Amino acid sequence: MIMSRIEAPRDEDSAAGTLVGRLLGVLPPDSVLTDPDVTASYAHDMASFCPAGTPAAVVLPRTVEEVQHVLRTATDLRVPVVPQGARTGLSGAANATDGCVVLSLTRMDRILEIDPVDRIAVVEPGVVNAVLSRAVEEHGLSYPPDPSSWETCTIGGNIGTASGGLCCVKYGVTAEYVLGLDVVLADGRLMTTGRRTAKGVAGYDLTRLFVGSEGSLGVVVRAVLALRPKPPAQLVLAAEFASAADACDAVCRVMEEGHVPSLLELMDRTTVKAVNDLARMGLPETTEALLLAAFDTADPAADLAAVGALCEAAGATQVVPAEDAAESHLLLQARRLSLTALEAVKGTTMIDDVCVPRSRLGEMLEGIERIAGKYRLTIGVCAHAGDGNTHPTVCFDAQDPDESRRARESFDEIMALGLELGGTITGEHGVGVLKKEWLAREIGPVGLEMQRAVKKTFDPLGILNPGKVF
Amino acid sequence: MIMSRIEAPRDEDSAAGTLVGRLLGVLPPDSVLTDPDVTASYAHDMASFCPAGTPAAVVLPRTVEEVQHVLRTATDLRVPVVPQGARTGLSGAANATDGCVVLSLTRMDRILEIDPVDRIAVVEPGVVNAVLSRAVEEHGLSYPPDPSSWETCTIGGNIGTASGGLCCVKYGVTAEYVLGLDVVLADGRLMTTGRRTAKGVAGYDLTRLFVGSEGSLGVVVRAVLALRPKPPAQLVLAAEFASAADACDAVCRVMEEGHVPSLLELMDRTTVKAVNDLARMGLPETTEALLLAAFDTADPAADLAAVGALCEAAGATQVVPAEDAAESHLLLQARRLSLTALEAVKGTTMIDDVCVPRSRLGEMLEGIERIAGKYRLTIGVCAHAGDGNTHPTVCFDAQDPDESRRARESFDEIMALGLELGGTITGEHGVGVLKKEWLAREIGPVGLEMQRAVKKTFDPLGILNPGKVF
Repeated sequence: MIMSRIEAPRDEDSAAGTLVGRLLGVLPPDSVLTDPDVTASYAHDMASFCPAGTPAAVVLPRTVEEVQHVLRTATDLRVPVVPQGARTGLSGAANATDGCVVLSLTRMDRILEIDPVDRIAVVEPGVVNAVLSRAVEEHGLSYPPDPSSWETCTIGGNIGTASGGLCCVKYGVTAEYVLGLDVVLADGRLMTTGRRTAKGVAGYDLTRLFVGSEGSLGVVVRAVLALRPKPPAQLVLAAEFASAADACDAVCRVMEEGHVPSLLELMDRTTVKAVNDLARMGLPETTEALLLAAFDTADPAADLAAVGALCEAAGATQVVPAEDAAESHLLLQARRLSLTALEAVKGTTMIDDVCVPRSRLGEMLEGIERIAGKYRLTIGVCAHAGDGNTHPTVCFDAQDPDESRRARESFDEIMALGLELGGTITGEHGVGVLKKEWLAREIGPVGLEMQRAVKKTFDPLGILNPGKVF
Repeated sequence: MIMSRIEAPRDEDSAAGTLVGRLLGVLPPDSVLTDPDVTASYAHDMASFCPAGTPAAVVLPRTVEEVQHVLRTATDLRVPVVPQGARTGLSGAANATDGCVVLSLTRMDRILEIDPVDRIAVVEPGVVNAVLSRAVEEHGLSYPPDPSSWETCTIGGNIGTASGGLCCVKYGVTAEYVLGLDVVLADGRLMTTGRRTAKGVAGYDLTRLFVGSEGSLGVVVRAVLALRPKPPAQLVLAAEFASAADACDAVCRVMEEGHVPSLLELMDRTTVKAVNDLARMGLPETTEALLLAAFDTADPAADLAAVGALCEAAGATQVVPAEDAAESHLLLQARRLSLTALEAVKGTTMIDDVCVPRSRLGEMLEGIERIAGKYRLTIGVCAHAGDGNTHPTVCFDAQDPDESRRARESFDEIMALGLELGGTITGEHGVGVLKKEWLAREIGPVGLEMQRAVKKTFDPLGILNPGKVF
C-alpha cells in the first residue's frame, strides 16, 4: 500500500527521494518539509560552538502513528533521526546531523487531561511549558519546572534535557514530575513506561532513564506529569554583597539553617551591569554580588526577614525585601534577563552549567574570576545559588578567532574546576554535542561503557540522535 | 595468589568447595557462613507464598573490595548472587535460590558523612533506616522515607525495593532521595552513578535505574542521599466514617482542595478491630473506616481544622484531632501495628500493595470487599490513602489448603482489579518473586522485552538475583 505511493526517486538524490517518498506514504505533505531554506532553520538549537549538519527532511507529525511511521522508515533506511522540541536547548542536543530526519514534535501540542484529585496532567510532547503552567493554574494547580525559556520551550524538550529552572531549590527538576511516558522506540514500536499513580515500582524505572536522554533512546510522544497545589505568590528579597564570597557564605547559612526558599539566585557584578545596560532595571551596580531569595510560604515576609538577617550576618551591605508582588516580579524579570543581557556584551556567549555542592560555591566563583583573568575575558555569572548550579557565561566576539579560542578554553577550564570541586559538568542543560568529550571525565570509563551499552540496548542501529551525549 | 589459598574441594561437594575456597581467599572466615542451619536463616524475606532455595554460602562483607571479590568469584564460577539487606521485604525479592551466594550487606553499616549545608548523607548500604534518621535529626535534618519496618530495614534494602512509607504523600518515596550510587557490577567492576550535587544531568540516569531493581542489576555499596530540613512535629487527626466510600470521598476532597498532609492513612473496620484485639488501643470499632490525617506545617492545628471540616462534609461521623504530640504518636502507632495485627487474625497473611489513582480509591475498596465475600475470606485494608496505595491483607490459615488456595486467588484478583482501575500491582513493595507473573500484564510485551534487555545489558550471565522481577 505504502510502496505504491512512493514517487520515483530522482537520480541525483535517490536516497533522500526514497526517504521522502516513504514518509509521504503516511504523513500529509504539509508535515514533510524538504525546502533547504526551510529545513536549515531547523538545523540547530541555541548553543554556540556546536556543529550542525544538513537535514534531508523535517517532519512535523501530529499523531503517535505518524511518529511510529517515521521511526520505522528511518530504521528500514538506516537514516538518523533527530527529535526536536522548540530548539531552545543550550548544548546542541537538538542539532541536525547530515542527511537526518529532523523529527519536530511541536505539532503534537495537546493537553489531554488535567486532574486536580490525582494531581496529574497528561500531555503531548509539543505542549509549551508556559501553556501547561497556565492551564493547570486554572485548576488551582502548579507545574513547577520553569526553565528560563519557559514561554517557548516544550515539555518534550524539557523531558529530553531534564530541564531545571529557578524553582528547583524547593521544587526539584523536570525528572521529579514525570510519572510515566509513551515512547516510540527506534524500530517504531510503542512502549509505555511508569504509571499514573502517585507511587509505583513495577519493574525497572525506564521512565527516568528516558528523562534527560536527549532523544537518544526513543521519542517521547505522551507524558503523565505530576502536579502540585498552586503555592501562594512568592515574595522576593534582594541582598547586596561586597564580595561573591560573602554572598556564597549567605547561601550556605540560609540552607544550613533549614530554610526552604522557593528560589535563591545569584547575579555577579558583570551580570548586574549587563542587565542594567540592556533594560535599565536600576539594579545596584556598586554590588559585587546580588542575591535574590524568595518564599512562597504562608508568611513569606517572616521567612524573608529571617533570611535577610542571615544575609546581614554574612556581610550583606544592603538587604531590600520587595514591597509587594509587583516589585518581586521586577526582580525576577531582571534575573531572567541575565543570559540575554550577557549575550549583548560582546555579541556571543558560551553558557556553562556547572553545578557544585553548594558548600563549594564560593570556591567555584573565585575560580571563575581567576579563569576570566587568565584568559582576559568577560565571564558573567548568574547562578541557581541554592542548588550550587552556576551559569558562568563567557562573553566574546565570535569574529575574533583568538578571543573565540580563549572563550572555548576558559569554558573547558570552568568544567574542570567544577569536577575538582566535586561537581558535575551539567546541572540542567545536558551534554548534547557541547560537552560529550567531558562526560567520560565525569562518569569514568566503567560508567561510560555501561551508558553506551544502554544506548545500544535501545538503539542497536544507532539511528537516534547519533553523535549526541557520547 | 588467591588460588594458592584455596583448600582442596571435597569430592561430594566440589563446586561449593571451590566457591567457598575462593571466597575465603579474600574474605575472613567470620564473613563466610556455610553451616546449613545458619545459612537457612538467610533463605527468605517476609513474604508469604514465595519459594526460597538453599544457599551454598552466606557472605557478610565489610568492604567494597570484598563485595567485588564475591562478584568476581560468582562470575568466574557462574554462581547466582542474592543481595540482601535486613530481609524485611514483602515480595520475596531477597529469597535465596539453590546454590547461590547470599550477599548480606548488613555489616557495611557506616554513615560516612552528614552535611547540613549540602543536605546530603553518604552511607553504606547496611545502615538501618532508623539509625540514619536519628543521626541526621541531630543535625536538624530529616531523611523522610519511613517504611513500616524502618526500625530494622536497611538503606540498601530500601534502595533495592524503592520503599515507600507513611510520609510519601508529602515527601515521596526512596527514589527521590537517592542522588548517587557506587555499584558493584556483576563482573566485579565498580561503577559510580549520579552526583553529590543538588542537580545533575550528565548522561543517562543510571542511579534511578538501580533504585527498585531488587539487586538484579548490581550491588549498591554506597549511596549519596538527599536530606531535608527537619520539619515541625506533626499533629494527627482521626476521622470516623460510616462507609469506606465516604472516607475515600474525604481523601479526594482533601487532595482536590490543595492540602499537603504529611500523612493521610486509612484503616478499615477489620484492621481497626485487629489492632484493638492485638494491643487494646481503644480505637472506635463502630467505624467502617478510620482516616488519619497529619500536618507538620507551621500551624498544623489550623490545617487539621480545615481537613476536619472536609471530612465532615464527606460524611464523617466523628472527627477527633489529637490533643498533643503524645496522642498523635499513639494514633500512628496504631496504624503502624496494622499489618502485625492482621497477621494475628488467622496466623498468616498475604499483603498486597496495589496503588490506584486516588480518584479510584473508593472503587478499589468496594471491589476488595466484593472479592473478600466471593472467596469467603477476611481481607483487612490499611492504605496510604493519600497516595491511593492500598495494602489489602488477606488473612488465612496456612494449614488449610482450601483457604490457602482461596487466599492466593483473591490476592491475584485484587491485582487484576487494581490494573483495571488504572493502577499498578505494586506501589512500594516491589515485584520480587511474588508478582513476577503479573509484571507483564502491567507493562505489556514491549515494556517487558526492554526491561529484560536492560537486565541482560548489566548482567549478561544472569547471575544477579536470578528468578526475581521477571
